Amino acid sequence: MIKVVKVGGHVLDDPAQLETFCQGFAALEGPKVLVHGGGALASRLQRSLGQEPIRIAGRRVTDAETLQVVTMACAGWSNKQLVSLLQAKGCNALGLSGCDANVVCARKRPPLTIDGKAIDFGYVGDVTPASVRVSFLKSLVDAGIVPVLSPINHDGAGNLLNTNADTMAASVAAALGAELWLTFEKKGVLSDVNDEDSVISCISKADVAALQEAGIVADGMLPKLENAFKALEGGASRAFVLQATLLDPQTGTELFL
Amino acid sequence: MIKVVKVGGHVLDDPAQLETFCQGFAALEGPKVLVHGGGALASRLQRSLGQEPIRIAGRRVTDAETLQVVTMACAGWSNKQLVSLLQAKGCNALGLSGCDANVVCARKRPPLTIDGKAIDFGYVGDVTPASVRVSFLKSLVDAGIVPVLSPINHDGAGNLLNTNADTMAASVAAALGAELWLTFEKKGVLSDVNDEDSVISCISKADVAALQEAGIVADGMLPKLENAFKALEGGASRAFVLQATLLDPQTGTELFL
Repeated sequence: MIKVVKVGGHVLDDPAQLETFCQGFAALEGPKVLVHGGGALASRLQRSLGQEPIRIAGRRVTDAETLQVVTMACAGWSNKQLVSLLQAKGCNALGLSGCDANVVCARKRPPLTIDGKAIDFGYVGDVTPASVRVSFLKSLVDAGIVPVLSPINHDGAGNLLNTNADTMAASVAAALGAELWLTFEKKGVLSDVNDEDSVISCISKADVAALQEAGIVADGMLPKLENAFKALEGGASRAFVLQATLLDPQTGTELFL
Repeated sequence: MIKVVKVGGHVLDDPAQLETFCQGFAALEGPKVLVHGGGALASRLQRSLGQEPIRIAGRRVTDAETLQVVTMACAGWSNKQLVSLLQAKGCNALGLSGCDANVVCARKRPPLTIDGKAIDFGYVGDVTPASVRVSFLKSLVDAGIVPVLSPINHDGAGNLLNTNADTMAASVAAALGAELWLTFEKKGVLSDVNDEDSVISCISKADVAALQEAGIVADGMLPKLENAFKALEGGASRAFVLQATLLDPQTGTELFL
């Protein structure tokens, strides 16, 4: 069973956590794919260049300049840094963005109306799950290669598009019928945010409304759970939320439909 | 016969030239590999970030900050921009840096003594020709995939290294026994720099000293010719210097040993 592991920008930004994560990921047995973010570096780079990152409803408004910065940060530094670190640990990583061998396509997000105002997110895309080149990814994995996917995808008409890494991981896991491991800084979904050992070991889709009402599942976690359920509905075999530096689904939260 | 085409940062920086080049490259028949630079964008980005690019003997002194910028520019923007444009023209491009599937390794350049002073170039590498993963590159090419190589390589120990794109193209062409096409802004080596039609159609290694003395081959061209001769000595089948926007070796200069 292929595992699709997602790691976020905050781990990539912290050398100690990054080292621990790469050790754990390289040691994972069986076929695997890594999907990463890189938004934190992109935001820092934008500020260093005198651009102010603009987010509306959690998504980065991406004009042509921002697209260049995000592509450089995610497809450039984050991707190649991960690949070279994994190679040094004996993991035959191969970095890919969606345009590479046309592995993942995305559709430009149409303008949204928020509070009565039309918002054009610019070069922001939504992954088209049917576009995932399953046979190509499987041929790499079968050859012992570990695809490392950045969230920069393309529309097939020459435009790069900035997409959400959690959503990309969910789409890829669904297409591959794989396990989805969404990693973050906590061990899993905690019933008491102050108690690291209060991990809820499994959550079904029907539980979410009650957990939201109880304040256990809040803003940051809700989209992760939604991505996990979408992956399961789309064909992923299992889905977990777990800690990046532990990388052990036994200690995390498993999601069920 | 595989063609290894090198395109430089100045073409990548000019939307009209880039479009013409991509059209020509996508239309080239037969198996092919693209190697690109990106130094012009890297220098601009450095300056926007308040760093002053430092070059000694033609090579960029690359500290950790500079390596990050060069990697973002070359492996990030230049590589993904080329790949997405080629995909839109029906060319199944796949971007790779040296670390990806360990396709090209480099060795950190030892400090050099220049004018009595030890110069540490930092994260600058020289491609190790024997490291080129010929079977992997050929398997991609056989599958109809067009590798697009950035000049960011790695040492296999977790470090990325900035290398020269002409040298990388020469090493890859030699390893593959391919034709090397080094493109630049002129049609070929000109006997009269003011006459675009004065292309010298072939130059042998023995001619170079006389051409230098006559002022026909100067600073910018000499390293290109040296790379071409090294490629031929290492196993490349043919070598040309030709115009990026024409992409026709018939109108360029062929190099012979």
